Amino acid sequence: MFEHQRHKPARALDRPRELVVVCAPLRSNVNFSRIARAAGCCGLQRLIGTGSPKLDLRIARESADCLQIETHRSLAPVLGDLRQAGYRLVGLEQSTGSIDIHVYEFQRRTALVVGNERTGLLPEQLALLDEVIELPVWGMPYSYNVATATAITLYEYCRQYPDG
Amino acid sequence: MFEHQRHKPARALDRPRELVVVCAPLRSNVNFSRIARAAGCCGLQRLIGTGSPKLDLRIARESADCLQIETHRSLAPVLGDLRQAGYRLVGLEQSTGSIDIHVYEFQRRTALVVGNERTGLLPEQLALLDEVIELPVWGMPYSYNVATATAITLYEYCRQYPDG
Repeated sequence: MFEHQRHKPARALDRPRELVVVCAPLRSNVNFSRIARAAGCCGLQRLIGTGSPKLDLRIARESADCLQIETHRSLAPVLGDLRQAGYRLVGLEQSTGSIDIHVYEFQRRTALVVGNERTGLLPEQLALLDEVIELPVWGMPYSYNVATATAITLYEYCRQYPDG
Repeated sequence: MFEHQRHKPARALDRPRELVVVCAPLRSNVNFSRIARAAGCCGLQRLIGTGSPKLDLRIARESADCLQIETHRSLAPVLGDLRQAGYRLVGLEQSTGSIDIHVYEFQRRTALVVGNERTGLLPEQLALLDEVIELPVWGMPYSYNVATATAITLYEYCRQYPDG
């Protein structure tokens, strides 16, 4: 009845994805690499890490082949450049004024900014953003792992822009 | 402008979640534990592992406190019991006849069945299911990590049933 299709080819996009993921300095290269894999699956073109992230290819898999992965020492100049280039700077955090992702409408040209595992997005990082969105939580623990939260947010963006 | 809210309390559900996650025997307790964390965040009540999964509490966090985690040696009897109890058995896999999650409408009482990291859901496991859903992939690699895919699917279910 159902036959497994291993390595089914990816879907085509009508236009390149304009979503970029920007990671504040993370603790874990595992999380950075998991974010790369999900970004690759979603057909993103750019992932920007700050601090000193290193990609673990056992986790990131072939995402490294199709995703341009940039690393920069600090976050603020990266966000300044993206704003200049017309990206809406959207943080993923539980904060005052954050918008429930269930009702949030993404701008196509968006930089999704995700924070450190322990600290989340810091006040000086939040101050650089246009908007903050949050994922609803109904149980324990009170927050998702950063790579999980990022993947969920990529899913929602792609649901709104299935063809790019 | 945006102030970080650490450990913001969870949202209330109007009724208990009727979504259960069932894991075919997985290779990795890390993935099982990541699934537990996401299930806990989504307010699920039950997670069923088969094979010999062990929860890593550093990953699963407090999900173990609010989630009933059951383990069974094999998958088939578990699915039989769930079907008896009125659950729709929905696999997460790329298969012939699988339905795009973007258009899929979940039945409230659903058992989400996820497969092994290497093999996915096997033919004899697929044969036990009512439906198969798949996540769209637009790039490389051609599939999401199992814990990431499960978290995305939990998100979509909860988007359809935000209040339980």
